[in-house]
Amino acid sequence: MALILGIDPGSRKTGYGIIDYLNGKPCYVTSGVIRIQAELALPERLKVIFDSVVEIIEHYQPQEFAIEQVFMASNASSALKLGQARGAAIVAACFHDLPVSEYEARKVKQAVVGTGAADKTQVQHMIKSLLKLEGTPQEDAADALAVALCHANTQHYLVRTAGARQFRRGRLV
Amino acid sequence: MALILGIDPGSRKTGYGIIDYLNGKPCYVTSGVIRIQAELALPERLKVIFDSVVEIIEHYQPQEFAIEQVFMASNASSALKLGQARGAAIVAACFHDLPVSEYEARKVKQAVVGTGAADKTQVQHMIKSLLKLEGTPQEDAADALAVALCHANTQHYLVRTAGARQFRRGRLV
Repeated sequence: MALILGIDPGSRKTGYGIIDYLNGKPCYVTSGVIRIQAELALPERLKVIFDSVVEIIEHYQPQEFAIEQVFMASNASSALKLGQARGAAIVAACFHDLPVSEYEARKVKQAVVGTGAADKTQVQHMIKSLLKLEGTPQEDAADALAVALCHANTQHYLVRTAGARQFRRGRLV
Repeated sequence: MALILGIDPGSRKTGYGIIDYLNGKPCYVTSGVIRIQAELALPERLKVIFDSVVEIIEHYQPQEFAIEQVFMASNASSALKLGQARGAAIVAACFHDLPVSEYEARKVKQAVVGTGAADKTQVQHMIKSLLKLEGTPQEDAADALAVALCHANTQHYLVRTAGARQFRRGRLV
């Protein structure tokens, strides 16, 4: 295991978080929020997400990429916006040939808080505690760190039990 | 005016079509359908769309990019899938700094068939006729050519009346 980049995509704010997983313990590396100006046209917004995620990957050189899986958004309009932002972020990972893992929101919360029904404040609180942070990370950054942590736990579990398995270029390797 | 790439994005099939607009007349250059294997995982599907659109841009060097605007998909699940495919295609255009124009489906049909309520067969028929094609293009390719044609007509109209106006990097230029 090494550096894991977690992404919480959104058309206005996209959270990112990087953790390092050393000897079975997660260490905080960085996190933040990519803010997209509301007055930009859609193509330019997607370009900001793509360029920013590419920049983060080039700067920190993570080996793995984790993102929340979305089964059902609240309505078709928000699903379309979320899908576009998600598409731009995933393509940025593919652009650098990073293996992409997807996790259900419920599973991410379960991994971090211990219950799939946790709210955002509980996720922020647990992220601060688990990663021994001095301050509370912003909501989207905390969600991004949570999905990275969920990936680390899942991969670590797989390494311990049956060898690491993940999808790379669409195939289980 | 010069080469215009039209894209009709979809998570299984993404249509593309290129037309040249010479002396106020549209000429067919190429069109086709990017087919995405159903068994691929989502990240790999989006990579296929991004890579293919980038390849088409690098090969044909279009100067403009047009895509259908989506206001409302039939449901949240299909909106998310469409959004992701759309995001991957738009980011491919942005990657090569192509200005992206979006047109409502109704406006595309109006431009090609003369009525915003036209069905897919009518669009195929009119594309064949307007571009003087020997065969009928596939549905998704015809839709992609239709959005390119709609863009050409709109731009041509603007050039004739008030100078070309378009969004480039999020700004009206």
